[in-house]
Amino acid sequence: MKVHKFGVEDANFRRSPGQQGDIDVANLVDQRHGGPITIGYGRYASSQTLTETMMVHDVMIVLDGRITVSTADGSVTASRGEIIYMPKGESVTITTEGEGALTAYVTHPHWEESHTG
Amino acid sequence: MKVHKFGVEDANFRRSPGQQGDIDVANLVDQRHGGPITIGYGRYASSQTLTETMMVHDVMIVLDGRITVSTADGSVTASRGEIIYMPKGESVTITTEGEGALTAYVTHPHWEESHTG
Repeated sequence: MKVHKFGVEDANFRRSPGQQGDIDVANLVDQRHGGPITIGYGRYASSQTLTETMMVHDVMIVLDGRITVSTADGSVTASRGEIIYMPKGESVTITTEGEGALTAYVTHPHWEESHTG
Repeated sequence: MKVHKFGVEDANFRRSPGQQGDIDVANLVDQRHGGPITIGYGRYASSQTLTETMMVHDVMIVLDGRITVSTADGSVTASRGEIIYMPKGESVTITTEGEGALTAYVTHPHWEESHTG
């Protein structure tokens, strides 16, 4: 693969698997491209909750809004320009409040290959 | 490692290795933490040029300003909220113009272990 630039206008959002809320994801680079990492955008409506155990290492960079990640050890909230790192194996609850959030994400390995069913 | 949140205020910037320009980097997560990816912030002054061959896969998310990456195939320019993916093995020239740039970066594997000398 060559050097590529992406923007939100390139994102083909679809419902994030394993949840019924209003959380959409759009992979821009993933297992289809032969490299070791997935890159994408995530879009969270307000007042959403998503609980999962991380199957991959996941970095979220907040581009707009505000997002909170809670674990058994406590919670962190990030807003624009801030980064939340969710290592593989961690059990997390991701929530938004009034404003929702737009994130960029980078995972290793590919998260989509780690989901079954 | 546990879930962590980072902001630019956590970054301990230092001159990016292998160049004499005004480009600073700050790893927040790297080989010291035992995982497979490096996370950090990059800060580029205006009118900088950095040429390198990618030793790792590198994702840059532009948080402020504007940055251009040129290869033999052409060039792309990204501004706030946009992403540039630079796969391992690509030869790139990274430039800023009048406004400089602030980026978040994620690399796999760790870029610092890939530098020698």
